[in-house]
Amino acid sequence: MGGDDAPEMVIAGLAMAREKLRNVDFLVFGDETRLNNLIAQHAGLAAVCSVRHSPDVITNDDKVATALRSGKQSSMRMAIDAVKAGDAAGVVSAGNTGALMAMAKFVLRTLPGIERPAIATVIPTQRGETVMLDLGANVDCDSGNLVQFAVIGEVFARQVLKLKQPSVGLLNIGEEELKGNDSVKEASRILHNSNLPISFYGFIEGDDIGAGTVDVVVTDGFTGNVALKTAEGTAQLLAHFLKEALNSSLLSKAGALLLLPALRKFKERFDPRRYNGAMFLGLNGICVKSHGGTDALGFSHAVCVAADLIKQGFNDRIKEDLESLIAMDGAEAAAASD
Amino acid sequence: MGGDDAPEMVIAGLAMAREKLRNVDFLVFGDETRLNNLIAQHAGLAAVCSVRHSPDVITNDDKVATALRSGKQSSMRMAIDAVKAGDAAGVVSAGNTGALMAMAKFVLRTLPGIERPAIATVIPTQRGETVMLDLGANVDCDSGNLVQFAVIGEVFARQVLKLKQPSVGLLNIGEEELKGNDSVKEASRILHNSNLPISFYGFIEGDDIGAGTVDVVVTDGFTGNVALKTAEGTAQLLAHFLKEALNSSLLSKAGALLLLPALRKFKERFDPRRYNGAMFLGLNGICVKSHGGTDALGFSHAVCVAADLIKQGFNDRIKEDLESLIAMDGAEAAAASD
Repeated sequence: MGGDDAPEMVIAGLAMAREKLRNVDFLVFGDETRLNNLIAQHAGLAAVCSVRHSPDVITNDDKVATALRSGKQSSMRMAIDAVKAGDAAGVVSAGNTGALMAMAKFVLRTLPGIERPAIATVIPTQRGETVMLDLGANVDCDSGNLVQFAVIGEVFARQVLKLKQPSVGLLNIGEEELKGNDSVKEASRILHNSNLPISFYGFIEGDDIGAGTVDVVVTDGFTGNVALKTAEGTAQLLAHFLKEALNSSLLSKAGALLLLPALRKFKERFDPRRYNGAMFLGLNGICVKSHGGTDALGFSHAVCVAADLIKQGFNDRIKEDLESLIAMDGAEAAAASD
Repeated sequence: MGGDDAPEMVIAGLAMAREKLRNVDFLVFGDETRLNNLIAQHAGLAAVCSVRHSPDVITNDDKVATALRSGKQSSMRMAIDAVKAGDAAGVVSAGNTGALMAMAKFVLRTLPGIERPAIATVIPTQRGETVMLDLGANVDCDSGNLVQFAVIGEVFARQVLKLKQPSVGLLNIGEEELKGNDSVKEASRILHNSNLPISFYGFIEGDDIGAGTVDVVVTDGFTGNVALKTAEGTAQLLAHFLKEALNSSLLSKAGALLLLPALRKFKERFDPRRYNGAMFLGLNGICVKSHGGTDALGFSHAVCVAADLIKQGFNDRIKEDLESLIAMDGAEAAAASD
C-alpha cells in the first residue's frame, strides 16, 4: 500500500517483474478487495499472487515511533512479519523509509556481528557498476560501523555483482593534512591491518565514485545520502544544459535528430528506474525499499533486486564472512586486555 | 612557485588576467631570475609586475606544521605577509592547500566573530550560480561554525554575485525521522530564530545543489568536499557516456558533427577552469587558492576571483554583518545566563 501511486503501481510492477522472474510467487499485503481487483486486471498474475488482508497503512507522514507502536496491522508490518515467519523470503516496499527500516530492524534483527543495517544501492560508473553504502540509515557512524559496512558491501559485490575480488574504498576528503574525521581514519587502520578477506583499496574521494575506482564505496549515512543525491542533481543539471545546447540552433536541432537513437540509449543508462531498489543490508532477512515516486517499471526493478539477493543466498554468504569479523573482534578485545 | 607547471603557468596566467583587469598590479614572489625571464616573454607584463625574491618553496609534500615553522622565506608565506603588511590587497596561490590555509590563518587571522575560515566556490546550477561552503577546511563543524558560514556565504552572494536577497540552505539528508546530525539541526534552529538579516530557506538535499534551489549552500567541510567532488565525477561520467553515444554509429557521428558548436558551448559551461579559484573566506584578508593542476587560463580565473573580492570590498561588507552576529551571540549568552 506504500508509494505515491500504490497499490496500482505495485500490482502493475509485479506483473512486469513476473515476466523476468521464474518460480517466484508474490504475497501481497493490503486492502484485499482492491488488490484482488487490480491483480485480476493482469492476465496470469493471480496464479502467482496470494493476497493477505491488512487493515492499516503506514503513511509517509507517520512518525517512526507511531509506526512501531501502532502499526502492527499495517501492510508494511505484516509483510515484514511474513519474512520473520518464513512465509516470505524477502520484502519489498515503496512506503515510508524510516518506518520500514525501524520495523525491519525491530522484527528481523540484525545479523550477528552487525550493529546497524545500512542502505545500499548499485550505481553506474565509468568501469561498470559499484555498490555504495550507507545511504542514510545511520547519520553518525563510528569506525566499527564502517568496517561492518565494508564487509557487507564486499560480500554483496562478490555474490550479487559476481566480482571475483572486489575492491573496497572508504570515502574521504583530499586535503592531506586535514584528511578525514576520526571514524574514517580508525576504520582505515582496522581494514588495513585486519585479516579480513577484503581487498581494501584505502581512501577514495568523491570523484572516484563516478570513475569506478573501487567496486564498493563505504561511507556514513549522512555523507552517502548527500553524495548520491548530489550525483542525481548533477545528472539532471547536465541533462538540462544538454537539452539547451541541442535546441540552440537549427543546425544543432538537425544534429539532435540524427542522434535520437544514441541519445535515447544514453538516457536509458541513467534512468533512475533502472537503479530503483535500495537494499537494507545487514538484517536477518531480505528487505528492499523502492522509491515512493516510481512507476511500475521502477517497482519491478526493486522486486528483481530482492529476488536476486534471495537467489544468490546473500544472507547465508554474509554470515560466513561475519564470523571472521566477530573472531577478529574477539582477538582485538583479547589483545587490548593483555 | 606553487602548482604543477609553476612558475611558467602562473606568469602566463597573469598575462591573461591582465587583459581582463584594469588598474591591477601584481607582486610576484619566487625565484627572481626565473620570474623576470618569464615576465619578459609577455609583452607589457613587466610594466604591471614587481618581483620579490623568495629563496624557499613550499611543496605539496610539505606538512602543514613544517611549512608553518620553517617556511618563512617561502614564496607562499612572503606573499601572505605582503597582504598583512598592506603591500598587497590579496593573495593567490596554486600551491599546497593545507599549508596555504594554515599560514593565511596564522598570519592574517580570522575576522571578528569567525572562529574558522571556510573554503568556498561558485558552481553552475540550473538557475544560474550558487556559492557553496565549506569545501574542506573544517572536517568537523559545530552549529556555530555553520551559522558563521551562512553569514559569510550570504554576504558573498549579495556583494559578489550581486543578488538582492540571496537564499541560504543547510545541506542535510532526506529521511524525516533521521533528519540530520546535531550540528545541522541546531544551526537550523539558530538561523530560523535569529534576527540575522538572512533569508534562510531551511534544509536542502544533495540534488538541490544542481537544481539551484538556494543561492548559498552551507555544509561542513567533509560533506562539502565529498559533494563537490562527487558532482565533478558525475559530470565526467556523463561526458564519458555521451562521448560513447556520439561515437556509437555512423548516423550519430554525423549528428555529432552538426552539433559541434553546440556541444562546444555545452562543454564550456562545465570547464573547470572557468570555476577555478577557491576562496578562503572569513580571513582578515583576501586569499584565493587555484587548483594546482590548472593551466594559464584557469590561473587567470583565480586571479580574477581575488580581484573581484577586493573590488567589491567583500571583507568590509562582511565585517558589518558579523557585528550583528556577535551582538546576537552576546544576547544568546545573556539569555542563557538568565
